[in-house]
Amino acid sequence: MSDMTETTPGWLPHDELEQARSRMPILYVEAVPVRVDDSGEVTSIGLLLRMGSGGAVSRALVSGRVLHHERVRDALLRHLEKDLGPVALPRVPASLQPFTVAEYFPTLGATPFHDPRQHAVSLAYIVPVTGDCRPRQDALDLVWFSPEEASSAMVLNEMHGGHGALLKQALAHVGCLF
Amino acid sequence: MSDMTETTPGWLPHDELEQARSRMPILYVEAVPVRVDDSGEVTSIGLLLRMGSGGAVSRALVSGRVLHHERVRDALLRHLEKDLGPVALPRVPASLQPFTVAEYFPTLGATPFHDPRQHAVSLAYIVPVTGDCRPRQDALDLVWFSPEEASSAMVLNEMHGGHGALLKQALAHVGCLF
Amino acid sequence: MSDMTETTPGWLPHDELEQARSRMPILYVEAVPVRVDDSGEVTSIGLLLRMGSGGAVSRALVSGRVLHHERVRDALLRHLEKDLGPVALPRVPASLQPFTVAEYFPTLGATPFHDPRQHAVSLAYIVPVTGDCRPRQDALDLVWFSPEEASSAMVLNEMHGGHGALLKQALAHVGCLF
Amino acid sequence: MSDMTETTPGWLPHDELEQARSRMPILYVEAVPVRVDDSGEVTSIGLLLRMGSGGAVSRALVSGRVLHHERVRDALLRHLEKDLGPVALPRVPASLQPFTVAEYFPTLGATPFHDPRQHAVSLAYIVPVTGDCRPRQDALDLVWFSPEEASSAMVLNEMHGGHGALLKQALAHVGCLF
Repeated sequence: MSDMTETTPGWLPHDELEQARSRMPILYVEAVPVRVDDSGEVTSIGLLLRMGSGGAVSRALVSGRVLHHERVRDALLRHLEKDLGPVALPRVPASLQPFTVAEYFPTLGATPFHDPRQHAVSLAYIVPVTGDCRPRQDALDLVWFSPEEASSAMVLNEMHGGHGALLKQALAHVGCLF
Repeated sequence: MSDMTETTPGWLPHDELEQARSRMPILYVEAVPVRVDDSGEVTSIGLLLRMGSGGAVSRALVSGRVLHHERVRDALLRHLEKDLGPVALPRVPASLQPFTVAEYFPTLGATPFHDPRQHAVSLAYIVPVTGDCRPRQDALDLVWFSPEEASSAMVLNEMHGGHGALLKQALAHVGCLF
Repeated sequence: MSDMTETTPGWLPHDELEQARSRMPILYVEAVPVRVDDSGEVTSIGLLLRMGSGGAVSRALVSGRVLHHERVRDALLRHLEKDLGPVALPRVPASLQPFTVAEYFPTLGATPFHDPRQHAVSLAYIVPVTGDCRPRQDALDLVWFSPEEASSAMVLNEMHGGHGALLKQALAHVGCLF
Repeated sequence: MSDMTETTPGWLPHDELEQARSRMPILYVEAVPVRVDDSGEVTSIGLLLRMGSGGAVSRALVSGRVLHHERVRDALLRHLEKDLGPVALPRVPASLQPFTVAEYFPTLGATPFHDPRQHAVSLAYIVPVTGDCRPRQDALDLVWFSPEEASSAMVLNEMHGGHGALLKQALAHVGCLF
């Protein structure tokens, strides 16, 4: 999940966020950006390219916290804009029913998902985007993969903390099976 | 469900359709056309206005058969275009998981759904449309209702065969509750 | 949602919970307890009967917080046991995909859901129970209603904070429509 | 999908079924039998072992047609009993929302699913079973696999017509990811 240095007024100060993280599950949203054709079929999947602290490259889904008094769909929209830029034109789903719920634990092995910083519970959605994507913040690039490429071990192995498992769930949910 | 006199070459001749209808369940798709805002929230629901054989007016969802060798998403697209016109720009969902399955029986009371002509099983989807809707075929008009209006007894009572029940399920699925 | 005075060691002290509640969304699970027949069809819905501080009677679903380092399915199981007793034999679903996500805001009107104490986001599940239910804690009783009774204005009006809306969503999801 | 020689009175005679199969999509249900623990987590998956006409062994999910005037949940129950025996005690889901819809085409490549006999559209469900499974009819055995074994190429390759793809979708839906 993306490391969030949130400095907007009204958001949680850093030390309070740290304290909360050690005491309760933190609510996240995650989005799998996709291109679809006219019949709704997924033609490609967008993955963020990130540079880790050690210089290693990794790929990630759009992800971030839900803030106090923020609706889930507004959090989705905010993180999509933060990660894909202002003209990506994401189609946030009409229903809040997620395709899955991913549970990130600070300890390894409890679930396929892992986040050393915290216990995060994430509502995951498929989000078609139709506009031009210009990654911002800490992402170097957004790369589009065919469903078959996105299902490959090479791509999945470049995803950390269980994002590869979540991507597999997303691909299965939209019927992309290889 | 719409009465379909299908005369395109390759489709089922009328008497064979009648025979099949008395022998096996017929697969349908149904779509609830909605307008959504930027955050994906449903702002209005589109209902077809139809004139019954006795002159009575009724409201209906987009509905029709899946043909032999036709994908569910292509059937959805075809019926949306048939009922809403060529520039409605429907967003067929990326996942085939329907929000519900409606079972129309020729006998009353087995389920909330009823179709005197046949046993039809229908995969139901919420479909945002962004373009201009110009109803064709046997529909007089497409009327947009607010979620609250669409939930009213007045509107629901103008829907037949269980379409009102299906609309209630759709509204519940997208969190429109009154 | 149930008021939770949690005193088990390791849980959040009361003042820290209050502080967290004013700073971030709190993750909840909710369960709609149902009886089903052999074909899985819902035959009755169980609602908790509670006595409010002013002596007014209200009805509620099973509901409670997810704790730090607790899986969603373990939280569901814990709250079901807390509210229905140790021999209710709940069938927690195999998939974590909830039928909906309910967003309770401390301000009225943002969503159909309201909780004056906090911003809570709740994953909602239908849970068949097959055993004997003996409500514990602050619930006076668990009363079973037919789907038609549970859909009635009389019952829905006795539910607070949006639990009536959530029950309507649950009934729609399982095809109980009146 | 299982080859069904249905001779019960009232069912479709063999030649009429053949004719219908060439003219319209045939509605199927499919069930993935699973064992779950008290928290609902899948601990094993049951696959039918079948002997093909050429002597080759294959593995399959529970699968079969929905008959005229039969509810989807009754068709599920009937095929579960047919394939797993009378004391398997399957828990047919309370909601008819399938985890996916599988489209089997007589031509290869249109979807991941293939059935040379027909165009079949199948509603797929995860079904926990708690009783003793005694395969009947044309199945030699029902073998239970751990989620990890069921995800292995060895098992998936023994499944035909896309049942391996459907099993992958089922495993992803219940969060079993390897």
